[in-house]
Amino acid sequence: MKSEFKRVLLKLDFTDVKAEKCAEIFATNSLEGIYSHGVYRFPRFVDYIKKGYVKVDAEPVRIHSAGALEQWNGNLGPGPLNAEKCTSRAMEIARETGIGCVAVKNTNHWMRGGIYGWQAAKKGFIFIGWTNTEKNMPAWGAEDARLGNNPMVFAVPFGKEAIVLDFSMTQFSYGKLEATEIEGDKLPFPGGFNEEGNLTTSPSEILKSRRPLPIGLWKGAGLSLLLDILATVLSAGLSTHKLSEQETEYGVSQVFMAIPIKKLSNFPAIENAISGIIEDLKKSTPDESGAEIRYPGERVLQNRADHLKNGIPVNQKVWEEIKRL
Amino acid sequence: MKSEFKRVLLKLDFTDVKAEKCAEIFATNSLEGIYSHGVYRFPRFVDYIKKGYVKVDAEPVRIHSAGALEQWNGNLGPGPLNAEKCTSRAMEIARETGIGCVAVKNTNHWMRGGIYGWQAAKKGFIFIGWTNTEKNMPAWGAEDARLGNNPMVFAVPFGKEAIVLDFSMTQFSYGKLEATEIEGDKLPFPGGFNEEGNLTTSPSEILKSRRPLPIGLWKGAGLSLLLDILATVLSAGLSTHKLSEQETEYGVSQVFMAIPIKKLSNFPAIENAISGIIEDLKKSTPDESGAEIRYPGERVLQNRADHLKNGIPVNQKVWEEIKRL
Repeated sequence: MKSEFKRVLLKLDFTDVKAEKCAEIFATNSLEGIYSHGVYRFPRFVDYIKKGYVKVDAEPVRIHSAGALEQWNGNLGPGPLNAEKCTSRAMEIARETGIGCVAVKNTNHWMRGGIYGWQAAKKGFIFIGWTNTEKNMPAWGAEDARLGNNPMVFAVPFGKEAIVLDFSMTQFSYGKLEATEIEGDKLPFPGGFNEEGNLTTSPSEILKSRRPLPIGLWKGAGLSLLLDILATVLSAGLSTHKLSEQETEYGVSQVFMAIPIKKLSNFPAIENAISGIIEDLKKSTPDESGAEIRYPGERVLQNRADHLKNGIPVNQKVWEEIKRL
Repeated sequence: MKSEFKRVLLKLDFTDVKAEKCAEIFATNSLEGIYSHGVYRFPRFVDYIKKGYVKVDAEPVRIHSAGALEQWNGNLGPGPLNAEKCTSRAMEIARETGIGCVAVKNTNHWMRGGIYGWQAAKKGFIFIGWTNTEKNMPAWGAEDARLGNNPMVFAVPFGKEAIVLDFSMTQFSYGKLEATEIEGDKLPFPGGFNEEGNLTTSPSEILKSRRPLPIGLWKGAGLSLLLDILATVLSAGLSTHKLSEQETEYGVSQVFMAIPIKKLSNFPAIENAISGIIEDLKKSTPDESGAEIRYPGERVLQNRADHLKNGIPVNQKVWEEIKRL
């Protein structure tokens, strides 16, 4: 899968190093089970390059340093490469100052934010990061979308692996709503309001009303707003409402923070503290479903192991499309 | 109200300066409409002092510095005073390094986290902070509480005021469930699972099952876990599960981050960027309820203005109790 992605990227004039890194990110996202932002998103990424929204040869540059906080310009380069670079830079700053923060404007969709959490955590860093997006969710008490779903990531080292939470501000993504509709299913929990303003588990009703539910109702709507304000202010970049004045989503604003656990007074006892928390969580009494209680990121490990052994399942039609690129 | 709080605190051997500051925080929380963590919480705060969980004369001390990140020991001092001090210290560090982070262990309940967001934002700082708590919410898919509701605060300057989001990881607090039950009402949205494992709007059913709903379901449960891990690791303090081994909640772990907007390249244009975001939000089409679309913190301004003019409403019984302290 990676070599196929790389072949396409080289054809689009990526340098060998950049094609390798970008193909690696898309392939890893699929390997770890986040197909929506791996193999299934790859054709759209290529389309955005062809349309000029994503600049293949652009490099992010630092525009301002305030010490442990830096402001960068992504110059509309490939989102995954810019995000990988900003994560590395936040870690570099943090090695010096205990905490590092890089905010980047004019960047592009980072695909799956969690991968930068894994990147940092596996090197011994706590990671907090988020991105804004175009408008796709109404404010609380509103009918029309003026907030983004603004994904956010928290990560922490856990042994040789990591605990990684990667979540967006809508309870269910539009991708999930569409997939559930195609399968003729209902959502497991209310996922939005229908046109009559009632909560519904029908994906079709939500796709029609365009009123997906924020996580935690008014709380997630508020968090979306604050994440957009912070990303915009810290990066000096475009806010959700400015992004949405464009013909499509490009030039988003993102924030990356890193903290090296080795710099803390309680290193290396940190590992025991985290293990203790996870062990206690695992002692939970399962509810009626009887399902296993998992920590964020645990399923990624299972997917990775399974797919390394048995291969990554792909939709034949999408794969054929990629082979034709 | 403030002088009444101060009278009680002086009687408990607070110094004049500390009594003044602590009374100010409790009174402001009530003034701004957060009665649950102002006047209504004051008797329990006094009780915790009398029982020795909160040490009146303890001062927080720095135990480790990693540059822009510091680890402090709260020495079980009054939570609001420790939190106010850690917020100030994070701002002080940030003035030097662009971002400052203070993590504190062995501290106590900060009452209303939002007030520290206002404190920082009104001085020109972006603020991010959170606390862990004792166990009060089940993990996703679990019946028994092993997670805290771990309140989190985001704040940003907005003109001479601030935009402040102060939210915990449960959709409704136990206080809200109890109040709704007493009033004989239903919750406006499902707030937890009943003993049969079905979502319910009945506060009584949730108070019985002890299964309040995390915000965003599995997402808020995950966020609660990560906030606990990060607070524990960064402060070298007690985690939710360790706190819950004690007879009551004391010695919690907290994190305070500050970023001075004056240090950013886009200052002072930041004010326009934020105003633009809020103006766009206010253009939202209201839903069926017809209610005003508000930004986080807007109601605080309304409460403050109303109460400064008309006084702070208090429950007579609670007020009598405070007068007898």
